[in-house]
Amino acid sequence: MKARTAKETLSVTTKIVLPNDTNTLGNLFGGQLLAWMDVIASVSAHRHCRRVVVTASVNNVSFNQPIQHASIVTLEAKVSRAFSSSMEVFVDVFVEDHVTGKRIKSNEAIYTFVAVDQNGGPIQVPELVPETEEEKHRFEGALRRKELSLILAGKMKPKDAVNLKRLFTEE
Amino acid sequence: MKARTAKETLSVTTKIVLPNDTNTLGNLFGGQLLAWMDVIASVSAHRHCRRVVVTASVNNVSFNQPIQHASIVTLEAKVSRAFSSSMEVFVDVFVEDHVTGKRIKSNEAIYTFVAVDQNGGPIQVPELVPETEEEKHRFEGALRRKELSLILAGKMKPKDAVNLKRLFTEE
Amino acid sequence: MKARTAKETLSVTTKIVLPNDTNTLGNLFGGQLLAWMDVIASVSAHRHCRRVVVTASVNNVSFNQPIQHASIVTLEAKVSRAFSSSMEVFVDVFVEDHVTGKRIKSNEAIYTFVAVDQNGGPIQVPELVPETEEEKHRFEGALRRKELSLILAGKMKPKDAVNLKRLFTEE
Amino acid sequence: MKARTAKETLSVTTKIVLPNDTNTLGNLFGGQLLAWMDVIASVSAHRHCRRVVVTASVNNVSFNQPIQHASIVTLEAKVSRAFSSSMEVFVDVFVEDHVTGKRIKSNEAIYTFVAVDQNGGPIQVPELVPETEEEKHRFEGALRRKELSLILAGKMKPKDAVNLKRLFTEE
Amino acid sequence: MKARTAKETLSVTTKIVLPNDTNTLGNLFGGQLLAWMDVIASVSAHRHCRRVVVTASVNNVSFNQPIQHASIVTLEAKVSRAFSSSMEVFVDVFVEDHVTGKRIKSNEAIYTFVAVDQNGGPIQVPELVPETEEEKHRFEGALRRKELSLILAGKMKPKDAVNLKRLFTEE
Amino acid sequence: MKARTAKETLSVTTKIVLPNDTNTLGNLFGGQLLAWMDVIASVSAHRHCRRVVVTASVNNVSFNQPIQHASIVTLEAKVSRAFSSSMEVFVDVFVEDHVTGKRIKSNEAIYTFVAVDQNGGPIQVPELVPETEEEKHRFEGALRRKELSLILAGKMKPKDAVNLKRLFTEE
Repeated sequence: MKARTAKETLSVTTKIVLPNDTNTLGNLFGGQLLAWMDVIASVSAHRHCRRVVVTASVNNVSFNQPIQHASIVTLEAKVSRAFSSSMEVFVDVFVEDHVTGKRIKSNEAIYTFVAVDQNGGPIQVPELVPETEEEKHRFEGALRRKELSLILAGKMKPKDAVNLKRLFTEE
Repeated sequence: MKARTAKETLSVTTKIVLPNDTNTLGNLFGGQLLAWMDVIASVSAHRHCRRVVVTASVNNVSFNQPIQHASIVTLEAKVSRAFSSSMEVFVDVFVEDHVTGKRIKSNEAIYTFVAVDQNGGPIQVPELVPETEEEKHRFEGALRRKELSLILAGKMKPKDAVNLKRLFTEE
Repeated sequence: MKARTAKETLSVTTKIVLPNDTNTLGNLFGGQLLAWMDVIASVSAHRHCRRVVVTASVNNVSFNQPIQHASIVTLEAKVSRAFSSSMEVFVDVFVEDHVTGKRIKSNEAIYTFVAVDQNGGPIQVPELVPETEEEKHRFEGALRRKELSLILAGKMKPKDAVNLKRLFTEE
Repeated sequence: MKARTAKETLSVTTKIVLPNDTNTLGNLFGGQLLAWMDVIASVSAHRHCRRVVVTASVNNVSFNQPIQHASIVTLEAKVSRAFSSSMEVFVDVFVEDHVTGKRIKSNEAIYTFVAVDQNGGPIQVPELVPETEEEKHRFEGALRRKELSLILAGKMKPKDAVNLKRLFTEE
Repeated sequence: MKARTAKETLSVTTKIVLPNDTNTLGNLFGGQLLAWMDVIASVSAHRHCRRVVVTASVNNVSFNQPIQHASIVTLEAKVSRAFSSSMEVFVDVFVEDHVTGKRIKSNEAIYTFVAVDQNGGPIQVPELVPETEEEKHRFEGALRRKELSLILAGKMKPKDAVNLKRLFTEE
Repeated sequence: MKARTAKETLSVTTKIVLPNDTNTLGNLFGGQLLAWMDVIASVSAHRHCRRVVVTASVNNVSFNQPIQHASIVTLEAKVSRAFSSSMEVFVDVFVEDHVTGKRIKSNEAIYTFVAVDQNGGPIQVPELVPETEEEKHRFEGALRRKELSLILAGKMKPKDAVNLKRLFTEE
């Protein structure tokens, strides 16, 4: 199974925020953005493994600034690391200034997908090769986040989370 | 500002999974469920503070088992803890067996909302009073999760996360 | 076939009125509310009989007061009476005051569903046992409404509508 | 205020039943059809009075036969009678045979709309002039249906429903 | 295969422009209108040949004047000419003045559909018989438009487009 | 007003074909694709001029091969030429092979947009500078297509369409 670079998994989608996507303040609903991110992240995971993928978990999505009605929003998803049958995907969300065209990053989210066969059982995926500084940084952090997920799911004891523990004890 | 019990914030919604909500395996799309959870969680947060609320972050959503087309899905949201202007909300998702009617828990998610004024600025919210065992358990865990969020956002150093650190050092 | 209480069939859904749900006065479209009521009423009928149910008729839906954009709307459906293969379902609609949280009843509707097998043929359903005063009142009225439906469909002569006739002659 | 003929209020819409419009048997959801009927009926009422109209009530919608996925469905709405500020509208629903093109009537519904001013207050509408046999038949029945609605809403005593009562006593 | 008149293929649909159908100026999105036109044009083509039809091309859609939110829009589609397995369909779009009820033509579009069998292969369709002046005019122009399409698709040389060429050389 | 290169206007969106986007053969509806193309083409035109843009016309959209349910579809839009206040935009549509990941071009469409001010009046846009061979080829053809549009709209006589005429007379 041939390894794939992060760049090969890049998936992009551009949306215009319509009235029905907005909350009572006239800004993009968090839930709508979550759904958009899930779709483009799944495309990225699919491009990594070329199999059917299903969402396994969502972590650490933050909504820092409101995105207004009629905004042009671009979502970019890239696989950050692959484990045996799962893939961690980062989604970066950018809003475009209508006048200057300058893109401002408004959100970041981390989704995990699992590759499955026709019966929904997990199947192996290729390795992910990070190339840029950011890709490497995210690749390294993925291990700690995986440990954290296992702890939160009660499948790992905190004391066994070697990488994560180091954060709290060494620093 | 009068404190409110978790029970007072309970918000329930029941959905039927339609064709457009499904992925290529015929199961509910993760993204659609994320959007549904955001809406009902926002109702719960609103019921706690009676102000406009906006999604601040999403954490720890896991998708353990697929939810099939035509399923009856019930989402129950309750505020687990309130901080100065933010509220942590748990969403529990149940799928109903068509024949026996028995509800099986399929997902759990944690959303955080912020109460805002007309200009989008944060405003104070009442305290949350947990009553049942589960409510108390979630109330206590909320502090550790808040520390974790601050660390992930680079706003707190791991060594200052008193509650969270204990998990890794004492156990 | 074990009888079921009205309470066992209670089905609840909570919605936020979005821009696309509104008419030119900025209030909830009647048609959108009719669709929401049909879905939750069908869940209630399904919970009564645990079979596939299809809408047979809609009667007596009144729209007394407009429901505004961004309202939180809760629909509660309960089976009011079961006949051989059909079930009458009441849907009560409540709007929540944003500031006080007080719920005000805005609509009431009566739907009838039929339980069907895989070929769409009608199948028998359990009896419905009313418990509260309101449940008993609705249970009793159901017979008159059934007679009325049969008359309107040309399947019963007015003079044979024993229960209904009494309304006009005795009072 | 010039009277208008029923024909002048005829409003037609043709739809194709899409996957999301169907229930688990693959047939058109009752709720979706109710929403479609409400929209085209409101166009018909609007054409009668040329004012903003809002749904006041829905009565006597029957769903006799299932409408399958991919069907071509035509809805025809016409005002059957106008009262001071309200209009009764009949909606006839036809399904088209894919091979022969023959239209079969599958549903009939009666909606009532009220004409309102900018503040939502009721305003007067023109009279409706029925021309065909069917239009006259529906025009005459409208009075009995109005009495029935008033009784059901507790605004008229059965014994005062002169037209409706005759049905039960004279026949 | 019996020829069919243009009138027999007339298909009508009436819509109300909802918030989600509008752009940032509050007018109907071009893309939404294109989708509506495609559906009603496909109904018209289907009525001509009574087979499954798929969109083959779209030509010459012009958007002259904006259509505002809450407008009542009527689309009328009619087959203008049939070739061996394809049908050219004209869609005329009218907007209704809310006060006078007068219909104003706002758009015109030309779609081409192909009749296909279960495997998606093209199958023969009946001839189209134009009757009115406008129908005859559109019938005649269809040949020139077909040549133009073939040229644009690189399947015909301009010099072989006998009918089209005449436009440029004789006039 | 600074000229812009075609590359600067590139706009990309990636979609997954859902059940509701499909026709009775299980392939993407032409109308849905037309709506998607309009949105991404409008983003491209907006990126060229940084003003509100509205669809002016659609030309020469061809649907050569069906796009199946669950396909990953990528739309790429680029401005091909700018006139005084209008911009011609090409949209190329690609479908991705699920196994090999190879992209196959399935459609091409040409949309024209007009830049408008707050009152909907046309305003001037910058020039477009083509760089690649394809961009130059499309830039040159734009003039002939504009003449063709003017003829079809009855605003130019065929004999005055200098560029277009050459196609038919010289070759």
